[in-house]
This record gives sequence, structure tokens and C-alpha cells, in this order.
Amino acid sequence: MPLKSCLPFDTVYLVGGTHGNERTGVSLVQHWGQSPSEIQRETFATHLLLSNPQAIEKNIRFIDRDLNRSFLPRLLEDRRNIDYEVGRAREIVKTFSAEHPGKRTFAIDLHTTTARMGTTLITNTVPANLAIAAQVRQKMAEVRIYSFDASDRINSCLRAAADGGIGVEIGPIPQGVVRHDTLAIARQVVRQILDAIDAHNRKTLALPDEETAVYLHDRHVFYPQQPSSAAPVFVHQALQGQDYHPLSAGHPIFQNLDGRIWPYEGPSPRYPVFINEAAYYRENIAFSLTRRITLASLLSI
Amino acid sequence: MPLKSCLPFDTVYLVGGTHGNERTGVSLVQHWGQSPSEIQRETFATHLLLSNPQAIEKNIRFIDRDLNRSFLPRLLEDRRNIDYEVGRAREIVKTFSAEHPGKRTFAIDLHTTTARMGTTLITNTVPANLAIAAQVRQKMAEVRIYSFDASDRINSCLRAAADGGIGVEIGPIPQGVVRHDTLAIARQVVRQILDAIDAHNRKTLALPDEETAVYLHDRHVFYPQQPSSAAPVFVHQALQGQDYHPLSAGHPIFQNLDGRIWPYEGPSPRYPVFINEAAYYRENIAFSLTRRITLASLLSI
Repeated sequence: MPLKSCLPFDTVYLVGGTHGNERTGVSLVQHWGQSPSEIQRETFATHLLLSNPQAIEKNIRFIDRDLNRSFLPRLLEDRRNIDYEVGRAREIVKTFSAEHPGKRTFAIDLHTTTARMGTTLITNTVPANLAIAAQVRQKMAEVRIYSFDASDRINSCLRAAADGGIGVEIGPIPQGVVRHDTLAIARQVVRQILDAIDAHNRKTLALPDEETAVYLHDRHVFYPQQPSSAAPVFVHQALQGQDYHPLSAGHPIFQNLDGRIWPYEGPSPRYPVFINEAAYYRENIAFSLTRRITLASLLSI
Repeated sequence: MPLKSCLPFDTVYLVGGTHGNERTGVSLVQHWGQSPSEIQRETFATHLLLSNPQAIEKNIRFIDRDLNRSFLPRLLEDRRNIDYEVGRAREIVKTFSAEHPGKRTFAIDLHTTTARMGTTLITNTVPANLAIAAQVRQKMAEVRIYSFDASDRINSCLRAAADGGIGVEIGPIPQGVVRHDTLAIARQVVRQILDAIDAHNRKTLALPDEETAVYLHDRHVFYPQQPSSAAPVFVHQALQGQDYHPLSAGHPIFQNLDGRIWPYEGPSPRYPVFINEAAYYRENIAFSLTRRITLASLLSI
């Protein structure tokens, strides 16, 4: 692993409400504001952040644009852009960097999904992030790791403003809802991530199992183009809720109420995620596809 | 039963999108626009209505105010009120009445909920509506009937603009999502309601079983008032998803992440519905309580 990945993290930000209607993270950050002891560790300072206050207040995903797609440098440097979320992104970049000169920050960003994805840790391919995620998976076997190669998508997310970061994605849960089970899982995952960062800082983090499965982002799958007069197309019942199950060519992926079926056509197997995520309708995204690889093969790319 | 309830319905409106982010009804109305034969019956004309087009377009519940609370005459007559939904309500009243002078209309309004309510028919206490709902329940044993005494709440809903009406409420499903199972249930329920109206018109509707259970609306239960600095309170895990299960004094109904529990205090048993409905957070409503009575006792009130 590159040397930099071994440097300790001085500050960890626990972030909720990057999407204002994903209430699990908002509630946990509010709770930890009252009960900080469970998120404190000896080797770093833990800070709390409600990242999109206006969207949280309105219980909507965003005001002007998706905050978690707003951290590209070219966007932040465009002074003509006065979108609320771009302003927030500029402030968060300052918070993560300028306020802690010379210190290294780690961001844990709490999300939920309407897809049946269980508990997913989302990372880029930086070894330190993957090693921390792999450690959490060793403690919680139900956790999956969903990784993105460098791209505008991953470089524009909130975590890109920190030196290290993991997105926590839990579902299914509706937008706008707080539910005991999702809260409990998110709370447990955060504790494990904090423990893993602590171990990383102490250089006691176990070498990750090279066979750990990583789901590497491949591409989005869009709803089929239909004339606006046509009957609506939706996720096929054989695919609904089958996040992380292998998908092969010929498997049905869409249907309509007339009984028409659209099969999957493409390389096989792929592992679908974010199936029928409510927030992605506006982009016409039905689900995303990943390739299942090992941590070893990812790190040797 | 009063004589009027025996008069036939000449026109039935199938309504979707009264709440623009409840996509099941929107999708079905779009589908039926392409395939009308399954919603046609001999004894009445069936019309389709997407009731809140701007909210549907934006995939949000409403633009200015809840359309399903906008049909009170005193609101419609207040010409200073220019809320989008009040304007829509005025147009829908015209559509239901003035365009069909002397004809009787029935509205089937399609909704979804994030609560685990299964399949619910919502009615006022007018005998014809209850008889039609009871007939559907005889065909589909999983259907429950949730009834409201005359009140601003029931008199302000879209169905109040028609001579008869039933609200269909299906859950759990997140807002903004279309899913095969919810579509299939809604489609089946609508067919049964149409068949029951057809039987009503032919005077062949079976006399309803007097022992049919009706859940009569009692009151809302609000989240406990807490200082804004306090940890958030949410539905207790023993209550989450327990819609229509009896609730007795002392049962836990709320909890927070510190382990504090709030018990139910009030008359017992009551039957909770709309537990943890996303749309009701803005009104601070955690769930509603009903009394379980028989159709016979409701009609004799």
C-alpha cells in the first residue's frame, strides 16, 4: 500500500443529512450531539456535521442540486455558481481542510436507500479506505463493500473533501422515515468504522483478507425509452429486491402492466445495486451494475 | 339504508396522483389510458383523472397544500385563495358535478403509504360506500375498512366532491417508487370495487355481512414534545409495522436512542394505523388510533 495510506487520521467527521430526507443519519448525529461518548476514540477527535441544513429542515433530498455531487473542484471554483449546495460544499471543504491545517480528516457519510441493499460501505479505491471497510466487514459479515474507480461521480461526493472516507448506505427504508432497525444498524456500523480508524491510527489494523469481496461499480442501467403515451415500465418482479444477486444475460429486468418483459442484455454475471432507488427516478436510473472482484485484484489494478 | 344510497352511480372516476409522489395510482391511471377495457363496466362510464399534475410532474406530495385536504366548501369559495391545489379542487368539483348534471359520480382515489397497512379501503360512514367496501372485503379477505365519521378531515378529501367514493391505501411502499406487488394489489382492488359498483347499480349487491369489521377513526397520536436539543424520539420497535394490531395501555409506543421508552396511555384496546407514515412527520403525527367495531354497529349509530 502507498505510504500515505498509513498516515493516521486526526479528525473524523460523522456526517448526516447530506441528503436531507435520509433521516437515519440526521437522527444519529442529533443523538450523538447529546451523547458523544460512544463516538469518541483516543487516537482522533470526532466531530459531528449536519451537512445540508436547509434540505434537512424541509425534509427533501436537496434545495438546488445534489450536495453529494457538488464537490468537484471546477464546480467549487466557479464563482458564478450560487447554488445553495455548492455554497455548502465550499464551506465543508473549508471545515475539513483549512480549519485543520496539516491534519488529516476522515468523513463517515450516513445515507439510506429505498433499495434492499442491506448494509453497504461505499468507498473509492484508496487502500486505507478499503482496509478500514474490510475490517468492518470482518466484524459484521452482512456488510458489503461497493467501490468506485476514480470518476466525476466519486470525486464529486462529500467524502472527496476529506483525506479518507466511507459512505454508509442502509436499506430498504423510505425517504423521510426514521425506523428503529435502520438506526440500530447504522449506529453499529459507525462504531465499527470508528474502531477500525482507531486501529489504523495505532497501526494495529489487521491486514485485510485478500479474498474479501468488493463490488466494483460498472455502469447505470436506465429505464427503457418509451413514448410518453405508453404504459409505464417498472423493475421486473424477479429483479425487485435482488440487490447483490448475480444477473445474467436473458434475465428479466423490466416489465409493464401489459405483460411485456425486457431481458438483461450485457456481460454476465453482473451484480445489481440500488435497484428501484426512489432518488434515481429523476435521472431515469433503474439500478446500477457492479462486478464482483476480490480486494486483492482491486488493489493490484 | 337511506333511499339515496340505492341510486345508481352513472360515472366512476379512477383517480391517481392526488399525492404526486404516490406513484402506484399514477402508473395505473397511465396504464388504463392505454388499456381501458379492464376498467369498463356496463352500468356506468369510467373516467380517468390525474388529479394533481404539477405535483406528479415534480414527484412531490403537493405544491402549495395537500390536495386531499382542500375540498371544504368554505375553502373553495374563498376567492382570495390562489393555492394551486385549491384551484385544482375547484376544477375537480366542476368535473365531478357540473359536467354531469343530474348524474351521480363515484370516485376511487388511489393512495399508498409507508406504513405496513396492507390493503385498506377508506370511507366515510355513508351506507352505499360501506356496502361497496364490504363487498370488496368479501372477495379479498386481506382488505380492511377504515372509516371516518363526518369531520373536516373526511369532508375536505377529494372523494367528498363526488356522490360516492372510496380511498384505496396500500403499503408499505416508499414515496416516489413504483413496485410490481403494490401495482398488482391496487389493480386487483380497483377491479373488485368496479365490480361492486356494477352490482350496486344492478341492485344485485349482496347485503353486507353485519359482522364485517370496520376500523373507525378515533384520533391522531403525536410524537412527544421534546426540547429541540433532545435526542430524537421515534416509533418503538414493538409498535413499528403493527398496524391494525390491538394496542393497550402500557404498551410501548415511542423510544429514543438513550433507551427511554414512552408507553401508551389511553382507552384500550385501540387499533393503530398509519404507523410511521412519512407524509405525516410534518404534522408531527406518529400514527392514528381506531376503534374496531362491526358494520352493524356503525350503521346503527
